[in-house]
Amino acid sequence: MGGCGVSFVDKSCVEFSAALASKAPVPGGGGASAMVGSLGAALGSMVCNLTIGKKAYMDVEEEIKDVLSKTERIREDMLNLVEKDAEVFEPLAKAYGIKAQSPEERVAKDALMERALKTACSVPVEIVKQSLECLKLLAVLGRKGSRLAISDVGVGALFCQAALEGGRFNVIINTSIMKDRAYATSVEQETDRLVRDGLALADEITRTVEQRIKKS
Amino acid sequence: MGGCGVSFVDKSCVEFSAALASKAPVPGGGGASAMVGSLGAALGSMVCNLTIGKKAYMDVEEEIKDVLSKTERIREDMLNLVEKDAEVFEPLAKAYGIKAQSPEERVAKDALMERALKTACSVPVEIVKQSLECLKLLAVLGRKGSRLAISDVGVGALFCQAALEGGRFNVIINTSIMKDRAYATSVEQETDRLVRDGLALADEITRTVEQRIKKS
Repeated sequence: MGGCGVSFVDKSCVEFSAALASKAPVPGGGGASAMVGSLGAALGSMVCNLTIGKKAYMDVEEEIKDVLSKTERIREDMLNLVEKDAEVFEPLAKAYGIKAQSPEERVAKDALMERALKTACSVPVEIVKQSLECLKLLAVLGRKGSRLAISDVGVGALFCQAALEGGRFNVIINTSIMKDRAYATSVEQETDRLVRDGLALADEITRTVEQRIKKS
Repeated sequence: MGGCGVSFVDKSCVEFSAALASKAPVPGGGGASAMVGSLGAALGSMVCNLTIGKKAYMDVEEEIKDVLSKTERIREDMLNLVEKDAEVFEPLAKAYGIKAQSPEERVAKDALMERALKTACSVPVEIVKQSLECLKLLAVLGRKGSRLAISDVGVGALFCQAALEGGRFNVIINTSIMKDRAYATSVEQETDRLVRDGLALADEITRTVEQRIKKS
């Protein structure tokens, strides 16, 4: 990372899958969650693109265009977060590797670790936020988008749910070992709140999708 | 498709995400589910690769090597299913497009549609099966894999759960409009059984991961 070679999202899907499978520290579960979030947003955009311009959906066209501009922004932001997750993991991996023997060295390492943990948390928190935003848009598409693409709304919601909860695991793996418990608890509580809202939405969307498929 | 141009999984992640977002009939939610399943299997492989060769896990090394060979097979099978999903959708898209006016034409179109729907179902059923197999392997990794990679086991399980349920949506979108109700019901019931088993496993894995992270 940090400018050396090709970015992860410019790798082919085959190469990205192989890189994820390797023991290399990045990409890991955080970056992969952002990738899955991007695919969830992409399905939202696809549903918009299959709705816009269709006579039966003329009355919602402006609203769907607005949704499309937002799913496209999230799709791109999530792709950027794949890269950013690798960048913020770098200082943490370095801090982990430091050999501290004297008490002074241990204090210095602890301080470095603490800062690195806070930085490493920032990207998965953002993945959680973007996943929730995308679920809100998919909820609109489940009600107003083309019925021909209703299963894609459902799959999009499942992907955003995975990115939401995957992001959360990558938050708490860092907060759980922070010394600053007040900070850690506040990040965990905010994340849990976002995840709770996202899970409720995902559940509502997949139920709607299930009903609409079965009525078809 | 069908030999014309680059395969979907050879596209870069950025290009695949953009192709999914477009109104083009493929890739769709089925192929995307296979892609997410491949990433779930990749995280399983990563956890194996971070466990093998480590002193603390010498007693489970052979078992983890066996798990790795299986997650790697699923990872590759899932990548192939991304392509196959597009291939089996082609005859269905063609059948949909046929203009049938006379009663004879309508009978012929119905027969073609029915066959195309059964073919289109085959790939998502396979995605559901492979996702369940991968969840079984991730359950082993949650108990025996390196604790340093415990969050990745959880994220892998979330991805396989999304692929499992995403595959199911792509099964029932096809079975719901089949005329052969006996066939449709039998496929739906088998799929529901696999999904029920998979969801129970995913729930067990994510609970274990949550507990192990919080104890760290």
